[in-house]
Amino acid sequence: MSEHAMKQAMQAYIDAFNHSDWEGIVSLYADDATVEDPVGQGVINGRADIAAFYQRSIETGARLRLAAPIRASHGDEAAMAFDVELTMPSGRAVIRVIDVMRFDESGRFVSMRAFWGASDMEGVAA
Amino acid sequence: MSEHAMKQAMQAYIDAFNHSDWEGIVSLYADDATVEDPVGQGVINGRADIAAFYQRSIETGARLRLAAPIRASHGDEAAMAFDVELTMPSGRAVIRVIDVMRFDESGRFVSMRAFWGASDMEGVAA
Repeated sequence: MSEHAMKQAMQAYIDAFNHSDWEGIVSLYADDATVEDPVGQGVINGRADIAAFYQRSIETGARLRLAAPIRASHGDEAAMAFDVELTMPSGRAVIRVIDVMRFDESGRFVSMRAFWGASDMEGVAA
Repeated sequence: MSEHAMKQAMQAYIDAFNHSDWEGIVSLYADDATVEDPVGQGVINGRADIAAFYQRSIETGARLRLAAPIRASHGDEAAMAFDVELTMPSGRAVIRVIDVMRFDESGRFVSMRAFWGASDMEGVAA
């Protein structure tokens, strides 16, 4: 798994989300992948639950914007900082996130962990 | 461990590095902490090896600049994207990094993992 290929998959994830393409996102995941979003509040796994998670996320109308260039690593993981931009009845809101993905040998995500907390939300009603 | 306390410790890490204060950095770590920098190239552990690692890093004259606000989580981990700025004989160079820290109950780092690859270096001679 090259650094370039990992970064391409991360960018494809951002692009698919922004095109409301939940099937495109799910196709980036391995069959037995896990998603922990946010870190510390439980792990979901398997295509069905992951598909439902992204359907719900995309239904919010959120858009993802990279906050800095995607980082690779010397291993099978990569990471990226981005902002989730939401339009709420009360105006614009943002959730600041860092995602870490681990890849399998075929280049699909086997795990995603999303780092964000209550203090990373701005303009989101509690 | 509050989100605020985790973010304060991450900021203290950046500040100590930029003041060439390797002892200050080491004091942020638990006694049996591990450091994987970069991810995929081995793990060091224990205060002596961690101290030596930061002494070498600081000797390069590098400075750390946050690329986006520090992220917390709903668990005992936090993450931050930053740029390592270096002045090389050939000019300025940068390494783009994301660090993930896990905290113990006393608020010290028990692990640090630094995501960066060869493709995240700019202006660094190979």
